[in-house]
Amino acid sequence: MGNPQQFKDISQVDFAKGNGLVPAIAQDVRTGKVLMMAYMNREALETTLKEGRACYWSRSRKELWRKGDTSGDIQIVKDVLVDCDLDTILLLVEQQGDGACHTKKWSCFFRRFTREGDLQEIDE
Amino acid sequence: MGNPQQFKDISQVDFAKGNGLVPAIAQDVRTGKVLMMAYMNREALETTLKEGRACYWSRSRKELWRKGDTSGDIQIVKDVLVDCDLDTILLLVEQQGDGACHTKKWSCFFRRFTREGDLQEIDE
Repeated sequence: MGNPQQFKDISQVDFAKGNGLVPAIAQDVRTGKVLMMAYMNREALETTLKEGRACYWSRSRKELWRKGDTSGDIQIVKDVLVDCDLDTILLLVEQQGDGACHTKKWSCFFRRFTREGDLQEIDE
Repeated sequence: MGNPQQFKDISQVDFAKGNGLVPAIAQDVRTGKVLMMAYMNREALETTLKEGRACYWSRSRKELWRKGDTSGDIQIVKDVLVDCDLDTILLLVEQQGDGACHTKKWSCFFRRFTREGDLQEIDE
């Protein structure tokens, strides 16, 4: 995928540690809410940069996953950050449609643990 | 670790998918900034809930990692969220000390990719 010259710094990303995949967090650029976490291989990262739309690697379907292609809930990517160890990606996105979660919640993180370890739903 | 009755809902967390570990994102509760991503096993999650302080599993040292024990950069946990698939944790934390990153940056995400795939440092 892509021109190796064009994407040379992407070679620094440590895909090896995760057998070709790195975790990618998506954060709502407008509200700061953390929306979801998924995985990217190199092609997904390059596609995300090229298209300005979040593209992940589906571990269950084993294919490139242009988020929103079927649901319409696409993510316009405003910024692509990487952490100190170069093994985790953080996307700042404009979430479109009904939200990031397949349950149609805005964020996948809609439940919390109490201090006693009980799960409870939180208000959005 | 702990009383199984006390932490029964933690059994719902899908540790199996990640060979006993789940990714855990730490977000600054004051600024909304995503600080870091690390991993937790069940004991780390229970310890985090019990102590109200972020505790991870160090994959390199293969031991429980009470963040800040040596650096002083501890994370006071204000909320513990879990995602729709019950396989990713999101901590809302009050970061203490110099920051979350071992480089003494406040966040581990201090670099971004340009659209051309070049790495650049961002202002904090």
